[in-house]
Amino acid sequence: MNIKNIIMIGAGNVATHLSVALSQAGYNIRQVFSRTEASASELADKLKCPYTTDLSQITHEGDLYVVSVKDSALNDILPKLVQRAPQALFVHTAGSVPMNVWQGLAERYGVLYPMQTFSKLRQVDFREVTFFTEAHTAADLKLLNEIALHLGSKVYEASSEQRRYLHIAAVFACNFANHMYAVASHLLSANGLPFEAMLPLIDETARKVHELPPVEAQTGPAQRYDENVINRHLEMLKSEPRLAEIYEQISKNIHEYASNKKETL
Amino acid sequence: MNIKNIIMIGAGNVATHLSVALSQAGYNIRQVFSRTEASASELADKLKCPYTTDLSQITHEGDLYVVSVKDSALNDILPKLVQRAPQALFVHTAGSVPMNVWQGLAERYGVLYPMQTFSKLRQVDFREVTFFTEAHTAADLKLLNEIALHLGSKVYEASSEQRRYLHIAAVFACNFANHMYAVASHLLSANGLPFEAMLPLIDETARKVHELPPVEAQTGPAQRYDENVINRHLEMLKSEPRLAEIYEQISKNIHEYASNKKETL
Repeated sequence: MNIKNIIMIGAGNVATHLSVALSQAGYNIRQVFSRTEASASELADKLKCPYTTDLSQITHEGDLYVVSVKDSALNDILPKLVQRAPQALFVHTAGSVPMNVWQGLAERYGVLYPMQTFSKLRQVDFREVTFFTEAHTAADLKLLNEIALHLGSKVYEASSEQRRYLHIAAVFACNFANHMYAVASHLLSANGLPFEAMLPLIDETARKVHELPPVEAQTGPAQRYDENVINRHLEMLKSEPRLAEIYEQISKNIHEYASNKKETL
Repeated sequence: MNIKNIIMIGAGNVATHLSVALSQAGYNIRQVFSRTEASASELADKLKCPYTTDLSQITHEGDLYVVSVKDSALNDILPKLVQRAPQALFVHTAGSVPMNVWQGLAERYGVLYPMQTFSKLRQVDFREVTFFTEAHTAADLKLLNEIALHLGSKVYEASSEQRRYLHIAAVFACNFANHMYAVASHLLSANGLPFEAMLPLIDETARKVHELPPVEAQTGPAQRYDENVINRHLEMLKSEPRLAEIYEQISKNIHEYASNKKETL
């Protein structure tokens, strides 16, 4: 048994990049569903397929239904969705949602979690994406792994518990690291300085952890516990108390990790 | 007048990488000073030059004295250092220390701030380093710029006030971003998962901000304000209150930046 016809539930960043990649890889995206008409039609346009904003109009002709929606929408969508095609395979793409969210609803189900940061404005090379898969049966797990490999991606099997930790780690390593860039950009532009000046530093910081564990790669005032600098920086952030708080807590945590490292040497 | 003989004050990461690069570029590092005998002798070994741990034994034969020490050591070192060679040019390499720390002490002074992350265990390509320079006289500024260009680096002139903001921005974009990697590594290793799984994501996160402003590149639960995920993550961090606090504050700040962005559209 093979996957040919795919129904895409959701039209956000992950849904868009994933369905376009699936379509380019030869899968037939039969329909797009999104509550938001503008998003649904935009994605359907890209895929040259029909769309609906009505759960009861979702076609029953899918082999695979891929759900990429905000976690809070899952409870509402899943039961109605499964009724549309009780024999099909159902997956969600969320890092932090356990597989058993499908239990008692669907016969065949699993998870296809692409660990990457997807923005509408930027192409993603799926050879740079790692998928973590899980399924209720070995046969369906094999089908999911084949899809990931067909996209040129790496694929690992991961339990719901492992995926939960992969996802929170990804929030720190990607989403929060990017926000540190955003804070830098904010501080620079408030003083007429270009963010571009940071790019060589950002690149080197990312390259370093290919060679050194992040704790070994750590530099800066908090690492060497230079209280003069830390206090001057906190003074500079006085008018933005949340930034000052973030600066202080991260600095304390860096110092703690540095101390733990010394103790274990 | 040209710079030939350089005396290196300090033997930490910046002092080490900078003096090795200067030496390889043909400058004569005449002497290394560090209060710590082990660091002084290790760097002097690399540079095949003498060292001292005694300020009063610093040679007067330098054209340029480069001070790369913890900011808190400056007050103690600078007055005694300048007395050793009142006609020479004196610079420090600190982002957050104003140039006027030399005022009233030295005749000729300035700042040579290399904005990059230096770790002892990793080679640095100085073509990837941006120097920000400042000097009391135009003639000495020219000398400092020439040194940076001679190392193959980019160089910009920056006032003490601008450098202060460059430095705090660099702390966020580099030191704090790296700490986000360290937290990810900690969460993964506590659950038997390899940090390597994060590298494609870390690389893409850094690449994205070459094309998109960081606020546009932002993704993740805080960006789409997915409170279900945020609350589950805070629950997972309950046993590490400082990490939970960092998670919450950064998430709030991401949400605030996203809301401000929408308002300005």
